[in-house]
Amino acid sequence: MPERARFVSFLSDYGRSDEFVGVCHAVMLDLAPHLRIVDITHDVAPFDIRAGGLTLVRSVQYLPEGIVLAIVDPGVATDRRCIAVEVEHGWLIGPDNGLLAPSVAMLGGPRRVVALTNTDYQLPAPGATFAGRDVMAPAAAHLANGVGIEELGDLVDPASLVPGLLPLPREEGDDFVGELLWIDRFGNCQTNIDPDALAARGVRRGDAIEVRYGNETRRARWVDAFADAKPSEVVVLVDSYGLLTIALDQRSAAQELKLRTGTVVTLGIEPRG
Amino acid sequence: MPERARFVSFLSDYGRSDEFVGVCHAVMLDLAPHLRIVDITHDVAPFDIRAGGLTLVRSVQYLPEGIVLAIVDPGVATDRRCIAVEVEHGWLIGPDNGLLAPSVAMLGGPRRVVALTNTDYQLPAPGATFAGRDVMAPAAAHLANGVGIEELGDLVDPASLVPGLLPLPREEGDDFVGELLWIDRFGNCQTNIDPDALAARGVRRGDAIEVRYGNETRRARWVDAFADAKPSEVVVLVDSYGLLTIALDQRSAAQELKLRTGTVVTLGIEPRG
Amino acid sequence: MPERARFVSFLSDYGRSDEFVGVCHAVMLDLAPHLRIVDITHDVAPFDIRAGGLTLVRSVQYLPEGIVLAIVDPGVATDRRCIAVEVEHGWLIGPDNGLLAPSVAMLGGPRRVVALTNTDYQLPAPGATFAGRDVMAPAAAHLANGVGIEELGDLVDPASLVPGLLPLPREEGDDFVGELLWIDRFGNCQTNIDPDALAARGVRRGDAIEVRYGNETRRARWVDAFADAKPSEVVVLVDSYGLLTIALDQRSAAQELKLRTGTVVTLGIEPRG
Repeated sequence: MPERARFVSFLSDYGRSDEFVGVCHAVMLDLAPHLRIVDITHDVAPFDIRAGGLTLVRSVQYLPEGIVLAIVDPGVATDRRCIAVEVEHGWLIGPDNGLLAPSVAMLGGPRRVVALTNTDYQLPAPGATFAGRDVMAPAAAHLANGVGIEELGDLVDPASLVPGLLPLPREEGDDFVGELLWIDRFGNCQTNIDPDALAARGVRRGDAIEVRYGNETRRARWVDAFADAKPSEVVVLVDSYGLLTIALDQRSAAQELKLRTGTVVTLGIEPRG
Repeated sequence: MPERARFVSFLSDYGRSDEFVGVCHAVMLDLAPHLRIVDITHDVAPFDIRAGGLTLVRSVQYLPEGIVLAIVDPGVATDRRCIAVEVEHGWLIGPDNGLLAPSVAMLGGPRRVVALTNTDYQLPAPGATFAGRDVMAPAAAHLANGVGIEELGDLVDPASLVPGLLPLPREEGDDFVGELLWIDRFGNCQTNIDPDALAARGVRRGDAIEVRYGNETRRARWVDAFADAKPSEVVVLVDSYGLLTIALDQRSAAQELKLRTGTVVTLGIEPRG
Repeated sequence: MPERARFVSFLSDYGRSDEFVGVCHAVMLDLAPHLRIVDITHDVAPFDIRAGGLTLVRSVQYLPEGIVLAIVDPGVATDRRCIAVEVEHGWLIGPDNGLLAPSVAMLGGPRRVVALTNTDYQLPAPGATFAGRDVMAPAAAHLANGVGIEELGDLVDPASLVPGLLPLPREEGDDFVGELLWIDRFGNCQTNIDPDALAARGVRRGDAIEVRYGNETRRARWVDAFADAKPSEVVVLVDSYGLLTIALDQRSAAQELKLRTGTVVTLGIEPRG
């Protein structure tokens, strides 16, 4: 672990239409002018801890070594804790509401955790509703300056942290029942279903797959690339994170098939419909 | 004041869907590669000088020492001036239309002001409609490189600057009459009413407050945190800038109560409704 | 050309609502921590190669010397090539689909081109649908670190690249027939018509110009600044790129006149309507 971190990777649901993100940048750079900040995204849906946690865990293996600052914080100004988590190659800072949990696990689990209670490392504030600015961004900057994590507040038992619950897919006969984790800008719909599970049952590229959700059944085909889809053809492909994704070519599958994050989706390898 | 500024904090109504912001970054970094740029926000509503001025004045105390570049410029290419204002700990650059005025005041007032008339420090341009790129971003970069403000153009009498007019609240009996300054991404509605004024009249956390606007009257309660609100309960709380804000928990007060920036709002400490 | 590039200027249709842009930043900075990244814009309309190419060519003369990374890539994961193009003062990286072509031409034409086929300079990936992260961002970072372009893959005949086709205007009697290239955030509508062509026919500032499109005819006036327009008056002015643009003052010409990118527009210097 470096003495002094060079990078903070920053995710939030602050949006960019207000000054929230800019002010957090400013606070960090004012305290630690050497810092470089990578904005993962700030357009996590407001208050959506699960979506924020999923976005972070998709990103975390690519982030430069240093600090992760992640803020989706519907409990701001209540007694929910703000925490800093030390992992093998860096630190994560955020509210203790499950947002960080999947990423902490992916990074090898927590080594030390503190609650950010030491006001010496916080900004004074006229109101408590912007803990990003007043508590968490300063903590990131001080860590980056080499302040020890144990100086930022009280040590916390890692077992007491709020867990992050991710839905698991299951097999039912010839069906793989999962859930949509993510709709991206292009309308592609990521499931939580692993292509290896279908491959283990002999499904191959080019094969038909039935996509079922609600009362709908759609015929789809497993392809390699979006552009392999014929016009209006629903396809299933392995996305860049290794999960099965429902898509159309150059159009939004989410919009045209009326799919949303959280929709339960069944991929059937034997047609029924 | 440093010889060479390291940071430019940049606010505009340029949005991010076009290349306006990126090109201003490029112009500054081409001229002053050592610069670091903090994007406060670029989603000020188009042409909304008041909203831009309010966003800037909320942010300015947090910005790292250096230069502020702020552009909301409906008068671009007319004879409105572009100005650079020297304050005690830095400089502000923008159109002379009131946008900078509240922030200049907060930073201790102007020491020297110049109109950006020296074309040696501007980019040649085929058309005059992008003064951010051609006049103001270059001025920021040259200042950051140590060029004296007086070289950028003609000295201007600070008293001749366009003022920024901010609405003041008033007390009427048991009522505090103010105006909504800002609706944030989450739909929280910031008033211009100081909680100390209500506290001076004996109003405390937990007390009822009546929120009146147009023909509507809503029962509200003064709380500490968004999450203190019961489902659908309207609450009033002290926001992170120290002003009273009308909110719902995890929902948009602006949308559900039909509130907009500029709406006149009365907070009544004795029920009438 | 510098041994080691300091700047990557980055344009895409990735949007900012997902982590695509942030992850590409992260990948580049992890490989080349000295890099500075300029985000031109990431809100090119999804899959719109022409709009992306136009945005890039408008920006390219302002970018700091170094590398351009441009990604609008509807053919991702097919056999379309990803390429790196060496020009006199830098490199451009993107899919070979015409996106880079106008900018390469403006920068003096290609000197050497390679297809990014060397997997030693790519990230391993579970799926092929995010070539920005796995192929193109790494190529930019390795180039910035001083890796020779010829190491990134096979040399390609520049004549084999997909061209970028831009629409040309034409004169028909007293009419100048063009096309809308760009609607900006403010609703200004950039044509591909050069003001010098009208000036050569004696048209001057203040003169009337007829704007015709579909079945509509609008009386307009050639002015210098948006603010020269009377309320609701349609004006034509020379925009900051030197092209004639149709506008209203502080309102969206695109919305009110129902104009879209690609609309064929005639500017008539003798009234007919």
